[in-house]
Amino acid sequence: MENFKKALAEVIGTFVLVFIGTSSAVIAGEQIGHLGIALAFGLTIVAAAYSIGTVSGAHLNPAVSFAMFINKRLSAIEFVWYVLAQIIGAFLGSFALKTIATDKGAEGLGANALNGISTGTGFLVEAILTFIFVLVIVTVTSNTKGNAKLAGLVIGLTLTMVHLVGIPLTGTSVNPARSIAPALLSGGAPVDQLWLFILAPLVGGLIAALVGKYLLDTEN
Amino acid sequence: MENFKKALAEVIGTFVLVFIGTSSAVIAGEQIGHLGIALAFGLTIVAAAYSIGTVSGAHLNPAVSFAMFINKRLSAIEFVWYVLAQIIGAFLGSFALKTIATDKGAEGLGANALNGISTGTGFLVEAILTFIFVLVIVTVTSNTKGNAKLAGLVIGLTLTMVHLVGIPLTGTSVNPARSIAPALLSGGAPVDQLWLFILAPLVGGLIAALVGKYLLDTEN
Amino acid sequence: MENFKKALAEVIGTFVLVFIGTSSAVIAGEQIGHLGIALAFGLTIVAAAYSIGTVSGAHLNPAVSFAMFINKRLSAIEFVWYVLAQIIGAFLGSFALKTIATDKGAEGLGANALNGISTGTGFLVEAILTFIFVLVIVTVTSNTKGNAKLAGLVIGLTLTMVHLVGIPLTGTSVNPARSIAPALLSGGAPVDQLWLFILAPLVGGLIAALVGKYLLDTEN
Amino acid sequence: MENFKKALAEVIGTFVLVFIGTSSAVIAGEQIGHLGIALAFGLTIVAAAYSIGTVSGAHLNPAVSFAMFINKRLSAIEFVWYVLAQIIGAFLGSFALKTIATDKGAEGLGANALNGISTGTGFLVEAILTFIFVLVIVTVTSNTKGNAKLAGLVIGLTLTMVHLVGIPLTGTSVNPARSIAPALLSGGAPVDQLWLFILAPLVGGLIAALVGKYLLDTEN
Repeated sequence: MENFKKALAEVIGTFVLVFIGTSSAVIAGEQIGHLGIALAFGLTIVAAAYSIGTVSGAHLNPAVSFAMFINKRLSAIEFVWYVLAQIIGAFLGSFALKTIATDKGAEGLGANALNGISTGTGFLVEAILTFIFVLVIVTVTSNTKGNAKLAGLVIGLTLTMVHLVGIPLTGTSVNPARSIAPALLSGGAPVDQLWLFILAPLVGGLIAALVGKYLLDTEN
Repeated sequence: MENFKKALAEVIGTFVLVFIGTSSAVIAGEQIGHLGIALAFGLTIVAAAYSIGTVSGAHLNPAVSFAMFINKRLSAIEFVWYVLAQIIGAFLGSFALKTIATDKGAEGLGANALNGISTGTGFLVEAILTFIFVLVIVTVTSNTKGNAKLAGLVIGLTLTMVHLVGIPLTGTSVNPARSIAPALLSGGAPVDQLWLFILAPLVGGLIAALVGKYLLDTEN
Repeated sequence: MENFKKALAEVIGTFVLVFIGTSSAVIAGEQIGHLGIALAFGLTIVAAAYSIGTVSGAHLNPAVSFAMFINKRLSAIEFVWYVLAQIIGAFLGSFALKTIATDKGAEGLGANALNGISTGTGFLVEAILTFIFVLVIVTVTSNTKGNAKLAGLVIGLTLTMVHLVGIPLTGTSVNPARSIAPALLSGGAPVDQLWLFILAPLVGGLIAALVGKYLLDTEN
Repeated sequence: MENFKKALAEVIGTFVLVFIGTSSAVIAGEQIGHLGIALAFGLTIVAAAYSIGTVSGAHLNPAVSFAMFINKRLSAIEFVWYVLAQIIGAFLGSFALKTIATDKGAEGLGANALNGISTGTGFLVEAILTFIFVLVIVTVTSNTKGNAKLAGLVIGLTLTMVHLVGIPLTGTSVNPARSIAPALLSGGAPVDQLWLFILAPLVGGLIAALVGKYLLDTEN
């Protein structure tokens, strides 16, 4: 029951992230630009952290949950629940956007794709950005090194930051769930490249978990 | 007397929300764009929460007060006082904008209206955005789950977030009081559609109150 | 000695406000737009509050000091020291901008002036915006109602907010010191209208002090 | 060992600052504008402060470390470790940007240079902006006057603020490490002017340390 509640919270939170984030690009991108999209994605973390985060911690992202699993803050069972919930929430977000975009006459679902860069560069970008993002998360939510009250704000602003650089390169994933749903629902290049947007964030998250643990003593 | 002071605080706070928010669109929208308008609306919550919010809680919004009533944080009498005060404050805000806009030669009062989408989609958008917004509010102001010091900032940033997506679709209401005053003072399509901008936010707020209570344990 | 230190702190703080704020308009305005200028002005409060504010409270503004004097948080002597210091700091800020702008070939000093509106509307705008701004200040810095740690952030964001609406109307003063120095150094219409940018903010500040005291119980 | 860990933390943190900050200009600058670049630089401080800052304090900047050394918060040995680490981190950031920019076809590494202003004005700008920036840092991280939990946020927003004014003048350095790596890797005018972007921030930082100590009592 506890796991079910947490999973439901992650469904709602990842719905918010994907719905608001990708809608800001697809529906409002022309008016608010990359700066506005970056802000929208970041603020979804703020909104989720201070609402459903009180139950689940608001990971909203398999790369984040993977780092938490590596550092033993999540059991294997919990990790599976979290990731499934995140993927379901992401699909719900993409479905909601699809409904609205179809009516409005807007195109696409905000899927991630390499934009004029090689696969190697794309992997590097996603791994570095996820590393930075998850390093902030594992530290600011640490029992010993963290800042629980501000955590949601700090993490959200960090997500905005990585979007400012990543949007023109990959659209910025740093989150496999955020990539899976839009890619599978829209098809094409995003599907062919989907492995990258799953693997690179997991690699970045893994390194962040280890740097957090051994350099920043986040797990003491 | 206590209710009167709270109501007066809500009048001032809703005046700030409607005056600054709609003025940012009508007077400054061309220069600051949707991003600036979204920020202006969000910051009205910050300003109100840390000033008049110390007396009334700074609901500024019948959908918020309705959620508080559903979760028994507000009595029926208080709910009526709050909603009346919010509507009066909203009218004062629209009157102030009208005075300035007439002199400046700017048009409109920032009324909400469906922009190239069907009624069904508009209802869905307003209900979802209000659900997200009010879910954050009921949690972050909860006695057990909340974060009282940061609440105003978090709620304000969430309002900015929902505006980033909602402006091109409906102008973003998520607040019946914010819709009623501009619509009635400007007439036309906003009046015909006013029922939607009253009903959809109330539905979103209701669901948020229940999800908060039963999933996030906000009322324990 | 204590008063001298506080005054020196106010000189530095008001220098930061006027130098950064007006430079953002004169030097960088074309690139950052009204949104960037509004943010720059607001962030000067954040910077000043958490630095020199630890000594003087970072009023940086005669309308703020006037409200504090009305509510007996400042003696008459202190009030005079503060206002003199603020005007000196503002002149230093305008001198620094003038030096840079002359070299860069940029024009003007960011003086406030009525922009396509009547004197009455301009007075109304400045009085309302200052009222909102100072009401937030007297509450969030109140011993009983305040939030000392967040105060600088909240006040800065509120200053950003009032700029978002006020820039196209008056350039946004809400601060006699911020208007006096640029006007006297540049001459012309800003000098003729200077009385308005002194008087209207003081009126707005006065009303805010009284509403804070009698409605929000800020002085208990 | 302790020094080595701190140095490694500074390497990572300065990598984040230089990689994200200069990439935001080189890769994304056309889309996000000066406002977006200013925000990106500022948010690197937020991200670094709440992650590697828990080990090293997240100076990321020789001018900051110099001020800390002047005020005896850093020993001479530590100062050397910190500065070396910051320069290494900055080079890693510039290398990462170079790899990506080459693939993407973007030009430059975001080096600082005088933009239509004299050497004297450039020195003045960098010294003033660094003074403001470091004054906030020495105060908000002070044991007696500081605000430890909010420090990273306040410092980041202040860095955004100085960028809003400084970008059109010098590109905004206020940080010798941030200037050294891009200049040496790209050559040309930035190398000839590099002395200025080392010396002026150190002068600004020195004055800030002394004003902090003697006026604001930051070292009591």
